[in-house]
Amino acid sequence: MHKRITHLRAALAERELPALLVSAPANRRYLSGFTGSYGWLLVTPSAALLFTDSRYTLRVAREAPAFTLRQVSHEHPFPKLLLAAVTELGLTQIAFESAHVTVAEHRGLVKALKKKATLAPVENVVEPLREIKDADELTTLRRAIALTDAAFSAVVARLTPTTTERQAAWMLELAMRVGGADALAFPSIVAAGPNGAQPHASPSDEPLGSGRPIIIDMGVRLDGYHADMTRTIVLGEPDARFWAIYTVVAEAHRRVIAGLRPGLPAHEADALAREHIAAAGYGEQFGHGLGHGVGLAIHEGPALRRASPNLGSAPLRAGMVTSVEPGIYIEGWGGVRIEDLVLLTEAGCEVLSQAPKLNHE
Amino acid sequence: MHKRITHLRAALAERELPALLVSAPANRRYLSGFTGSYGWLLVTPSAALLFTDSRYTLRVAREAPAFTLRQVSHEHPFPKLLLAAVTELGLTQIAFESAHVTVAEHRGLVKALKKKATLAPVENVVEPLREIKDADELTTLRRAIALTDAAFSAVVARLTPTTTERQAAWMLELAMRVGGADALAFPSIVAAGPNGAQPHASPSDEPLGSGRPIIIDMGVRLDGYHADMTRTIVLGEPDARFWAIYTVVAEAHRRVIAGLRPGLPAHEADALAREHIAAAGYGEQFGHGLGHGVGLAIHEGPALRRASPNLGSAPLRAGMVTSVEPGIYIEGWGGVRIEDLVLLTEAGCEVLSQAPKLNHE
Repeated sequence: MHKRITHLRAALAERELPALLVSAPANRRYLSGFTGSYGWLLVTPSAALLFTDSRYTLRVAREAPAFTLRQVSHEHPFPKLLLAAVTELGLTQIAFESAHVTVAEHRGLVKALKKKATLAPVENVVEPLREIKDADELTTLRRAIALTDAAFSAVVARLTPTTTERQAAWMLELAMRVGGADALAFPSIVAAGPNGAQPHASPSDEPLGSGRPIIIDMGVRLDGYHADMTRTIVLGEPDARFWAIYTVVAEAHRRVIAGLRPGLPAHEADALAREHIAAAGYGEQFGHGLGHGVGLAIHEGPALRRASPNLGSAPLRAGMVTSVEPGIYIEGWGGVRIEDLVLLTEAGCEVLSQAPKLNHE
Repeated sequence: MHKRITHLRAALAERELPALLVSAPANRRYLSGFTGSYGWLLVTPSAALLFTDSRYTLRVAREAPAFTLRQVSHEHPFPKLLLAAVTELGLTQIAFESAHVTVAEHRGLVKALKKKATLAPVENVVEPLREIKDADELTTLRRAIALTDAAFSAVVARLTPTTTERQAAWMLELAMRVGGADALAFPSIVAAGPNGAQPHASPSDEPLGSGRPIIIDMGVRLDGYHADMTRTIVLGEPDARFWAIYTVVAEAHRRVIAGLRPGLPAHEADALAREHIAAAGYGEQFGHGLGHGVGLAIHEGPALRRASPNLGSAPLRAGMVTSVEPGIYIEGWGGVRIEDLVLLTEAGCEVLSQAPKLNHE
């Protein structure tokens, strides 16, 4: 964690911020290692404080040794402890995460600080640091991905046309949990036939059926990290239309894997898939972005999507882990999506997801 | 839902608020029935609008027929749609939920509204309405509680001294999910011996063991509603110390059930248990409040706890559903907690939880 704090301090220096108050749970955990459900970090060039309550005292010492505990209690509520720290550290300004602090919390802090220090709203200070995964994070992500792959392989062999979407989702959940997942990374999607035309369908009581596309989007959460993987399978014989569409998505996916490399702007990664899908006549049927970073959050930076006039598209960097998930969705017929997690390397990218692409392989 | 909107409008009129923007998920669901993960409600004396995106269009019509859909999109972001609604409805002030809206969201809304309407922070407008459960809510809560009771009874018979806390928690989870739960209401607590001395212990790989107290705190989530139940059991023969402590907690629990009635201030309900536990010499070992409301949130109003100089204690009302969960926690030995959900009735209260109190019964 010391390295992460060093990186944060460099980011603060670059923005000329004397101190940052961190409250977003994933950012708090990333910087400190602390897994409790309540806590605030205050990081300055010289100090690293963690404010939490008595439930978590023992956990702080074990998980967040780089931070000094300040114990919040009924008698010592957080705003008062923050004022004490401000006085002690001689701070006159504190940046805070405005995308996470509520208006009510902000008002409470302003009041408690009694104008001894001002609060400056900032966004995306810690998040960019989280985009590059370190060795520990990659180890956990690989374990999470392997668990996801194994659960998919174990379950897909047992699916039949009469299995319902909901039953299949439960079989996947059991396989992931028994395999060692702490939880699901997100509610699994099992969407057969027309249900697959919505990219975020919920499993229904409809049977999977035969000869039609079945989208399975799943992943485990392990030690705080998420896996994310999608396969589109068919029970029985796929028809010519399925193969036509599947081939377009698979080729789009292949082109992205072949083309991903550090330095490539994120929107150009998206274009590698989108241009192929559009050229095949399905441009309108690929309504979402190509992919997203994955780590302590299931959706984080980088965002691999179309360029937007308002949003710049930063170049990809080695060490990023992102999903690559092109898809085609056709109302009344269904959808095809193929999603792998990949690691950006100096040479290009390494595909981390290893589950078979089709149940026919 | 129409009745709930009517109650909200009365609450707004009483506070002289011309419009309320609702964004807290449980409040949004309570007022509209809408279960999507993203959305804002705007309620005025004459209008009820629901802003969400294309993922949920079909769901709005099905779940929230009392609301008019305003579809958020890339071209029509929420702040712009809010400005349009403000203009259309002639609003000059909108109250918003300051405990849920972030500083960044607030800034975006202020900017978009271009001073045509001001934003007024409010808290606890919808939450008090949620404290009184209507017939539909009680039906769902009773189902959630029955599922929880059944899972406990099925699993407790299969526990042995070599079962680990983590295995027991997984057995409970399986029983709840297979029984029909949508999810757990919260991560189950299974805490044997000294582990039970922390009211919020996480299940470990330690075996349950024989002759020592095992706290099991569990509940299902069903159709958005939560159950919450705690039992303290012993595998093998309890010793005299267990019975001494158990008897104090059970009597404290009994006194609360006998004494709960509409009109009783919440802190006096807490005192019914606390005074008995303190008289037995364990006052310092009962560190948490007596109970909390349960519904669309696992913790909601009313709060049954000690009176605080800053916090008034409102009288209990018929229709409230609250936990009653006195406990005694002794470092190095363990804990005893007994928790039921109860419904406040005109005559007193009805105990909803029906699981056996001990595995010896």
